[in-house]
Amino acid sequence: MKIYGDTNSGNCLKVKWVCDHLALPYGWIAVDTLKGETRTAAFLKLNGAAQVPAIELDDGRTLAQSNAIIRYLARGSSLIPADAFAQAKMDEWLFWEQYSHEPYVAVCRFQMFYLNKQASELDPEKVKRGYAALARMEQQLAVTPFLVGETLTLADVSLLAYTRVAHEGGFDLDGYAALRRWIGESEKVLKLPPAR
Amino acid sequence: MKIYGDTNSGNCLKVKWVCDHLALPYGWIAVDTLKGETRTAAFLKLNGAAQVPAIELDDGRTLAQSNAIIRYLARGSSLIPADAFAQAKMDEWLFWEQYSHEPYVAVCRFQMFYLNKQASELDPEKVKRGYAALARMEQQLAVTPFLVGETLTLADVSLLAYTRVAHEGGFDLDGYAALRRWIGESEKVLKLPPAR
Repeated sequence: MKIYGDTNSGNCLKVKWVCDHLALPYGWIAVDTLKGETRTAAFLKLNGAAQVPAIELDDGRTLAQSNAIIRYLARGSSLIPADAFAQAKMDEWLFWEQYSHEPYVAVCRFQMFYLNKQASELDPEKVKRGYAALARMEQQLAVTPFLVGETLTLADVSLLAYTRVAHEGGFDLDGYAALRRWIGESEKVLKLPPAR
Repeated sequence: MKIYGDTNSGNCLKVKWVCDHLALPYGWIAVDTLKGETRTAAFLKLNGAAQVPAIELDDGRTLAQSNAIIRYLARGSSLIPADAFAQAKMDEWLFWEQYSHEPYVAVCRFQMFYLNKQASELDPEKVKRGYAALARMEQQLAVTPFLVGETLTLADVSLLAYTRVAHEGGFDLDGYAALRRWIGESEKVLKLPPAR
């Protein structure tokens, strides 16, 4: 299997982390999104949506969308709860991540970290919604060790990607004790060096 | 089971359509989003993200996010491919829908249909991205009858919700023959009256 990704992208790192955690073999094909490498004809054949990550199986079939990819690669593993309702709660977080977290937390971080904007130049509405997303996670993580209960699932992998680097987007996690505890514990399970 | 929803919302209709198609019994609790009814303390206990749809099982457990809900309710049915890779392709469309289609097609429609904006008042970037999403669907539907192959899956249910009313958001589907064919066929399978 080949993973087409950019290690600067949290969405791509989700796929890498799942493969590393489950010891799935892969080749990493670096795609520089800032240089427009997802817009080439060759890449568009892999993913018509012109986004990384995308994977290519050994038989040539391709799959895109970070959360769809990790859901496929982790099937049958401990990263996906066996119980149908717990699995549905995991999915709830995965869809929420793409709609209510990534467009704010990741986008603010992108603008500061890669486009060198100042915090004061960010869209205040995006910052507000980013904090609302972090507050929602804090609320859950004050009750359960991980987002869907006692152990790490894909919900944690997915939300960890941009939450652990939220400070690079100007977000201050000082008032989010449960979130910081969860970041540390998730990094430990995934054997990642601390992001800060 | 109770479904908390607003029939003006495509995200809510997805859940209704799946239940009707699979003959799952439910009570529909109308929630008027325009009147802020998702912001009440009672509703926030159901879904801390303050969004419809949300479902409440008979034992009191709750689930949110339209695509997570339909994925849960349709488990084991023909709406979810049994093959793992086909299921992953379905998930690819579900995640893409929330990130690359709904924020443009549904949002433009909301602004015109509910806020009475004119097409000329829409954000041109949102319109452009909406058309890009429709073009991507057209490309797939020119090759396969439904988004993931020969039969209707949750990918079609999910994307039908806002695509069939795209004209209410100012989108002209005249150049999208495969898309229009697919809307008609999906409405037929789901026994919906034509949207236009």
